[in-house]
Amino acid sequence: MLAAPINPSDINMIQGTWRTEAVFSEEVLVGVPKDIPLPSAATLSVNPCTAYRMLVDFEQLQPGDCVIQNASNSGVGQAVIQIAAALGLRTINVVRDRPDIQKLTERLKNLGADHVITEEEIRKHEMKNFLKDMPQPRLALNCVGGKSSTELLRHLAPGGTMVTYGGMAKQPVIASVGLLIFKDLKLRGFWLSQWKKDHSPALTVLNTGGEQPASTATLSMAKRSSGLNQFKELILTLCNLIRRGQLTAPACSQVPLQDYQRALEASTQPFVSSKQILTM
Amino acid sequence: MLAAPINPSDINMIQGTWRTEAVFSEEVLVGVPKDIPLPSAATLSVNPCTAYRMLVDFEQLQPGDCVIQNASNSGVGQAVIQIAAALGLRTINVVRDRPDIQKLTERLKNLGADHVITEEEIRKHEMKNFLKDMPQPRLALNCVGGKSSTELLRHLAPGGTMVTYGGMAKQPVIASVGLLIFKDLKLRGFWLSQWKKDHSPALTVLNTGGEQPASTATLSMAKRSSGLNQFKELILTLCNLIRRGQLTAPACSQVPLQDYQRALEASTQPFVSSKQILTM
Repeated sequence: MLAAPINPSDINMIQGTWRTEAVFSEEVLVGVPKDIPLPSAATLSVNPCTAYRMLVDFEQLQPGDCVIQNASNSGVGQAVIQIAAALGLRTINVVRDRPDIQKLTERLKNLGADHVITEEEIRKHEMKNFLKDMPQPRLALNCVGGKSSTELLRHLAPGGTMVTYGGMAKQPVIASVGLLIFKDLKLRGFWLSQWKKDHSPALTVLNTGGEQPASTATLSMAKRSSGLNQFKELILTLCNLIRRGQLTAPACSQVPLQDYQRALEASTQPFVSSKQILTM
Repeated sequence: MLAAPINPSDINMIQGTWRTEAVFSEEVLVGVPKDIPLPSAATLSVNPCTAYRMLVDFEQLQPGDCVIQNASNSGVGQAVIQIAAALGLRTINVVRDRPDIQKLTERLKNLGADHVITEEEIRKHEMKNFLKDMPQPRLALNCVGGKSSTELLRHLAPGGTMVTYGGMAKQPVIASVGLLIFKDLKLRGFWLSQWKKDHSPALTVLNTGGEQPASTATLSMAKRSSGLNQFKELILTLCNLIRRGQLTAPACSQVPLQDYQRALEASTQPFVSSKQILTM
């Protein structure tokens, strides 16, 4: 193992451990191609995968269509902006107001964001006029819950879907009965771990720095599962976006594993714009 | 026009008028077959249609599967119980506690309800044990909103769908982020008026007492729309259930149109177990 990021899910509940070495059966690994930079490879298997699946699996979007999301500055949020842009989709990105909001706006726009709007601004009535150059979003991606998710629902087009993948506000999603009945809005959830179980039995991504040829895993999996391994396919799709410069790693700080406490502290600070990556 | 029921939607917002006579183009009408009793015919075009579509369109249920609903004593609720039983589905029916709860329970069980449970009972932890002879419901039908809908969500099977078609508690649907993400619950809405627009352009059901042969409308609609007219099909499916004794009209009181004020008053009383039908 060369490097591993600290994701919110590592802090909220223990899903695994950070470690320098481990023994795996070859067939449960996906090799990351050699030419993918270390920060991209280390942050590839959770956030960009979540972003890609949510953009593709819930609504059949066409180039020119629009997506709205909150927590747009998160690891998933940044991946959503970039992957959406690569797919020809436009994005409305909601973030919390902060001292350096102009700097953040600029950074997200450089990634391909069409609009960056604060939680306070999105609540204003005149926002509808401001956004009138965009089609109404048919997909909303919700990582916050509470009032923030209510605002996303308000801006969705009739028949649209809101996918919840996080609850950073620690408040439930509140949907008016009228929006469900008369606007036919759909509320769904997404959990990458479950998607992987459903689509790729017994497979783990290990950042091997390209030492393991990518084809090994494909062949052995083909024997075990009847269909294509869709997680493997997803990783390779994302690697192609990285190669074309359409998907970059989030801003990150590399911290040696022995300094994990420093990295943990940094990752729980408010308004963090930098992902902590433990190097082994 | 021979008879028309007072539905909650007639009181909450004016969608039409009650009248004894009207002029329609023949091709926008569906004739109700002669052998359907008047109370069934009068209450056919809204509540049973809503019940049938919600049972069939959202989850692919198999005989033996289970559905949970609130407001089980409403017109839609009673139709859900009967149509579900006819389809081989089992039902858990939540109702508000009331003085004559035993009488109501008996009546709903006679219609085919497997369990009748009060809002207070469904909240209790031991309810899970009580319901262990049933598979976890994969479909929930919500006419209430607020706390009642939160309970339905809690009892849904992983991957299940809750369809909201009313908001009698005048409170929004509240869904925990965890239920959406980790239990993959789906929240949807249903509105029969929209379904009719989408599936049967320019068609109205008129209770003609069978004077108009049912085939007339079918032929003229076939010329106008490319596919089958699904609303017409739905009405005929429900008429077959009525003929087989599997779908009866809700308990109802027939009131002459000139006494409409008495009927309106009766229909807004709490715990009404009788639908008011205006006879023309």
